[in-house]
Amino acid sequence: MSGHLAVIGLGPGDARYVTPEAQAALARADALYGYGPYLDRVPVRAGQSRHASDNREEGTRAAAALAHTAAGANVAMVSGGDPGVFAMAAAVCEELAAGPQAWRSLDVTIVPGVTAMLAVAARVGAPLGHDFCALSLSDNLKPWDLIERRLDAAAGAGFVIALYNPISRARPWQLGRAFERLRELLPPATPVVFGRAIGRADEQVSVTTLAVADPNAADMATLLIVGSRETHVIARPGRAPLVYTSRSAQGARA
Amino acid sequence: MSGHLAVIGLGPGDARYVTPEAQAALARADALYGYGPYLDRVPVRAGQSRHASDNREEGTRAAAALAHTAAGANVAMVSGGDPGVFAMAAAVCEELAAGPQAWRSLDVTIVPGVTAMLAVAARVGAPLGHDFCALSLSDNLKPWDLIERRLDAAAGAGFVIALYNPISRARPWQLGRAFERLRELLPPATPVVFGRAIGRADEQVSVTTLAVADPNAADMATLLIVGSRETHVIARPGRAPLVYTSRSAQGARA
Repeated sequence: MSGHLAVIGLGPGDARYVTPEAQAALARADALYGYGPYLDRVPVRAGQSRHASDNREEGTRAAAALAHTAAGANVAMVSGGDPGVFAMAAAVCEELAAGPQAWRSLDVTIVPGVTAMLAVAARVGAPLGHDFCALSLSDNLKPWDLIERRLDAAAGAGFVIALYNPISRARPWQLGRAFERLRELLPPATPVVFGRAIGRADEQVSVTTLAVADPNAADMATLLIVGSRETHVIARPGRAPLVYTSRSAQGARA
Repeated sequence: MSGHLAVIGLGPGDARYVTPEAQAALARADALYGYGPYLDRVPVRAGQSRHASDNREEGTRAAAALAHTAAGANVAMVSGGDPGVFAMAAAVCEELAAGPQAWRSLDVTIVPGVTAMLAVAARVGAPLGHDFCALSLSDNLKPWDLIERRLDAAAGAGFVIALYNPISRARPWQLGRAFERLRELLPPATPVVFGRAIGRADEQVSVTTLAVADPNAADMATLLIVGSRETHVIARPGRAPLVYTSRSAQGARA
């Protein structure tokens, strides 16, 4: 028996972002695993079993998919966006490292996708046009003071900052605290982009400034981009503004 | 006359990474602009003009595409990877901001793609599985001391670091200097991934450590990923090792 596990990025929430490689990997699978709403994006095919789980059960889901693969199946684990960015690929690696030695012989492929920050950036221009970082605001698996240190380091050194997992019912205050912290390091006019559900009917994108950015405008599915001192906004008559970060920098304050 | 400009990400160097959205945008275009090797990836279609330029002519290329759009054409500007990450979208925004007022009324769309760091990460596991940054080592448009400050800030705060534009004929020493700098902040065993030409016949991916990473193993087309203290390597019998960054962190040294 020689199973195969493909960890697949579906990109933002619309079929036009699913790469041909991801489509082929989905078509090959006997069994599909994933968080329910991501699985729901995959067209149903006869003979494929579906194993939906809750979004906080990443370790359990990864272990179940590995066990199924070890039993000889062609398994697909689906992620929104890119599976390697705050998603399932790391969970699969963690479970593989902790699991039975035999799992190390399994054939595992990661299929990359368009991650949320790239999709949100594309909607408004090129805010990630120069050095940037991606930071999860979830303090479920790391201490909050480490998140604050990373915010300080990134903003202080002039990185644009993409914020994943900004807020949830169980983490209501973290985004507000992050804005407070960033306001101490960055000018009030620093552009802030909120984006959610890119490519879906309920897509929402807005551009504001750090001075007035409202944490309540974000939810679990929102991706934020906080600009640097090199991030500019171009007003356009009759069109949404363009936000971009210059390709050149003059030395930015440390 | 109402032209349209699409700035399109082709993803890594193979058609299986080109999203359906990018395919559709390419098919709609009357005129294609881009760096020659990227244009060469786009299937030829009758009636489409092609405008190839050198890879250091980004501003000129962007201005030409905007002027062509303003004349009423459907123009496509192609980038490898994602156009918003160290690529053409920022150059288009810069030229649009600096150009004639009429350019601000143009219809401009950015079509995201799979950027190099996601493709390289997918090949080896999930090294970008937790907080990370993307940093260009090119000092053509920013001072080298700013790059060093960003390396220090990122490594010191525990970000995984993806390095774009690591080396070129005109910039031969920068990557070696970056490794020296990072060796002062990170343990010798820190995993370092070199990846180039993902999805192409000449694809090369290797995993080494910061202690022995050799700048001469990189060229212009190489993307590097330098791990954090939370990045691990799983040895696998008969298979390439998996590299991943834990989803949890215990507080990492500042």
